[in-house]
Amino acid sequence: MAYIELGNDDPGIRGLMRYRPETAKPLNALAEVLLRGDNTLSRGERELIASYVSTLNQCKFCSASHKAFAAAQLPGGADLVAHACADPDSADISDKLKALLRVAAAVQQSGRAVTEKDVATAREAGATDAEIHDTVLIAAAFCMYNRYVDGLGTFAPDAPEAYTRMADLIVTHGYGASLTR
Amino acid sequence: MAYIELGNDDPGIRGLMRYRPETAKPLNALAEVLLRGDNTLSRGERELIASYVSTLNQCKFCSASHKAFAAAQLPGGADLVAHACADPDSADISDKLKALLRVAAAVQQSGRAVTEKDVATAREAGATDAEIHDTVLIAAAFCMYNRYVDGLGTFAPDAPEAYTRMADLIVTHGYGASLTR
Repeated sequence: MAYIELGNDDPGIRGLMRYRPETAKPLNALAEVLLRGDNTLSRGERELIASYVSTLNQCKFCSASHKAFAAAQLPGGADLVAHACADPDSADISDKLKALLRVAAAVQQSGRAVTEKDVATAREAGATDAEIHDTVLIAAAFCMYNRYVDGLGTFAPDAPEAYTRMADLIVTHGYGASLTR
Repeated sequence: MAYIELGNDDPGIRGLMRYRPETAKPLNALAEVLLRGDNTLSRGERELIASYVSTLNQCKFCSASHKAFAAAQLPGGADLVAHACADPDSADISDKLKALLRVAAAVQQSGRAVTEKDVATAREAGATDAEIHDTVLIAAAFCMYNRYVDGLGTFAPDAPEAYTRMADLIVTHGYGASLTR
């Protein structure tokens, strides 16, 4: 049970979005641009950044959801995603993505924790300014989504199938679709 | 100088929004609904929540901006806003707003730091479920905006006039206008 009366039984952010469609609209639009819009980072890589930050924030609903979305869109699947979220540096991902995940981890602590050196290391590993920008904003955005979901005490399903079903929906139809299906 | 080449000299989030208009659009739309849309919390009260969270996150650009926006829209002006951001419990604000600021402070720490008791205390002080929802989402959103602004090392002006000019613009024209003027 959430801390407020939502008038629906949907889990996590889905219940909150049904409760307040006026804020759901820009929240979904932001996720759609950041995680699925045109980008030199793949959709799977961006979902991995979202999964990693949600894991660091210990947000059960968001980490399970975005791990499922990342697994559905990365060649390494669920095993790679689990490994990368637990210990990015030893995971089978590019040096560029490792450096971007270090930037994301700093953002999760605080905007002020990101150093010029973190950014320079990402750039040396091949990251563009646009990729650094989007990594910082994805990490910052999940510091919002995670706090929204947990700060209102929403329900997170235990069954993995709940998240793979959501992954099918998001991968096929995008974030705007999550309210209407 | 920001950590990435923005191609403009605008300070804080304004420079970032000019750099990436695709993400600026939902970021402005979210601020507009949360801080200026129809609500039983006044615009000034909501800007105070944004100011307080930005102060706790030590984000110079966002705290100076939103304090100016709150001061322009609250009867107590800048003195009240400064007092409330430094020590809400001794400020001349309602018990309901004090309780909502305590919820916001918990969200600033982590979504998981918000307790049923924090929410119950806000409700006993007269907060509705919608007000509690919006307080949590405003606080969460400023954990995003603050990290975005500082995580990319943007510039924050020292001169107070820079922020009062922005306040005139936002109070009159809203968040959507900040990119076009």
